[in-house]
Amino acid sequence: MNTQIEMIFAAAIALFAATATYFFLAHRKDFNKAFLVSFITIISYTLMLEGSTVSYGVEGGEVYATRWLFYGLSCGLLMYEIARLLGKSLSETAFLLFLTVIVMGTGAAAAYFDGWYKIGFFVISSVAYIILVYPLLASTSPNRNAVAKYILLGWTGFPLAFLLAPEGFGLITASTAAILYLLLDVFTKLIFYFDLGAKISADAGPVNSAV
Amino acid sequence: MNTQIEMIFAAAIALFAATATYFFLAHRKDFNKAFLVSFITIISYTLMLEGSTVSYGVEGGEVYATRWLFYGLSCGLLMYEIARLLGKSLSETAFLLFLTVIVMGTGAAAAYFDGWYKIGFFVISSVAYIILVYPLLASTSPNRNAVAKYILLGWTGFPLAFLLAPEGFGLITASTAAILYLLLDVFTKLIFYFDLGAKISADAGPVNSAV
Amino acid sequence: MNTQIEMIFAAAIALFAATATYFFLAHRKDFNKAFLVSFITIISYTLMLEGSTVSYGVEGGEVYATRWLFYGLSCGLLMYEIARLLGKSLSETAFLLFLTVIVMGTGAAAAYFDGWYKIGFFVISSVAYIILVYPLLASTSPNRNAVAKYILLGWTGFPLAFLLAPEGFGLITASTAAILYLLLDVFTKLIFYFDLGAKISADAGPVNSAV
Repeated sequence: MNTQIEMIFAAAIALFAATATYFFLAHRKDFNKAFLVSFITIISYTLMLEGSTVSYGVEGGEVYATRWLFYGLSCGLLMYEIARLLGKSLSETAFLLFLTVIVMGTGAAAAYFDGWYKIGFFVISSVAYIILVYPLLASTSPNRNAVAKYILLGWTGFPLAFLLAPEGFGLITASTAAILYLLLDVFTKLIFYFDLGAKISADAGPVNSAV
Repeated sequence: MNTQIEMIFAAAIALFAATATYFFLAHRKDFNKAFLVSFITIISYTLMLEGSTVSYGVEGGEVYATRWLFYGLSCGLLMYEIARLLGKSLSETAFLLFLTVIVMGTGAAAAYFDGWYKIGFFVISSVAYIILVYPLLASTSPNRNAVAKYILLGWTGFPLAFLLAPEGFGLITASTAAILYLLLDVFTKLIFYFDLGAKISADAGPVNSAV
Repeated sequence: MNTQIEMIFAAAIALFAATATYFFLAHRKDFNKAFLVSFITIISYTLMLEGSTVSYGVEGGEVYATRWLFYGLSCGLLMYEIARLLGKSLSETAFLLFLTVIVMGTGAAAAYFDGWYKIGFFVISSVAYIILVYPLLASTSPNRNAVAKYILLGWTGFPLAFLLAPEGFGLITASTAAILYLLLDVFTKLIFYFDLGAKISADAGPVNSAV
């Protein structure tokens, strides 16, 4: 296995172990999503570091398709927070959570498969992503701008990193891709909480409505 | 790969892409389940068309066990609609959703495994199916007859198609089975919504009760 | 395959088929979790008996990692009952269910992988387990002692059985481990319901609160 990538993954595990501990102690909430997001990210990086789920993309670059399956879980929790911040109803939130899982599941398929099927799953994932984020960006909530920053500069960075990485066109090495994904993880899963944690805590949850 | 089956799967993808677009535009609901059902069906057929998850049944006929895993998702959404139409409580609905996932998960195992284990998983799946549909058919809701048509002529057709197909006794070819499953998909996932869409929209959701 | 283990698994299937039937008939509830727990356990043992998902641990002893994936489902339902018995809010319950799935998913990874990764996933699973059970044991609910018995003597027995079995240090044979796990299954999934069924039925469900 690529030693550089191993070091990046090991650093990510150490970082998210630290933040999981911090969020566990600092966020004394009943349903501590900030802690769970970091904890799930530790598991994802441990599985990638283990290495037996690796596949190979352009020019033999390492591809870690399982990354996207765990994003289904962690980004589902983040989407729940975002839906709350934007005052979405429980019905809308359920729809957004379904779409998040679809985006990430088909993203894993796009990373894993080759040729036309890679393109096909990437297109399906992208269509679901647009349907997912459009109502978030079009929101008239006072928190819209605070959230849009993480969507536009963070979440949207993942499919761009995918296209650059060996799972896409292979314009950057697997190590560079690992760093890029890690920076996006830090932005969307850690800075997001440090920045918006106070707003999230103040929020009273989605308006309960007929699903 | 079998070219006939490839053409059937490609036709199914085109059809459900069209209906996903239609339901997305026509059903302006917060939690657009009609759209999601079609969208999930596109993903399922794309994975089957890709072909690397195929296994082989009687006389080497193609078996697509993943079909049933995706039915776990899409039929879970359909069961939610049906539970609403029949006025089921949230507790009953949760039970029906668990059973739907069990029916489809063990159906995938029955399709994939051979010999006594195929029979064993088919029996487990059938027991769960009977427990699932009995309270639907025994419902005294005014919508009972409208729903029963789709259960008896649609949902129940899937295990019968399974028995005829290469995953069962192999009395029909894999291509004929693919057409039969597609017709059942059209009936339970599209005609269902065109027929009952107005009733579904009018419905106020399940009565919230202690789960 | 090891004939002794096959006989233990077959006995488990017969036992849980009997209890699934009993709970189905005796617990006339909308959301019959006692029945579902037994039914899911049948499926888990059938898959283990089938044998193609077996892997091998210390000295070639049989390891059944899928056991833990199904515990994610069945113990999720049991945790829901426990959370109700202890009067946990819906938010806390959601947190406990997430942790249960994480404990069991990483438990499956610990059983399947070897060396440092086995240790790593076991540590992650144990950390999640401690975070899960601490608030249960620290509860001031009048049902705390009734529940604590099953946590301390039952649930906590599983990681101990893991350590003794071929997936851990291999101090006992795979057959002995299969018996030990079965006894723990009987205690946590059957005796639990026979003992606390009346309290569970009397319970009015978790207090609905902002998740």
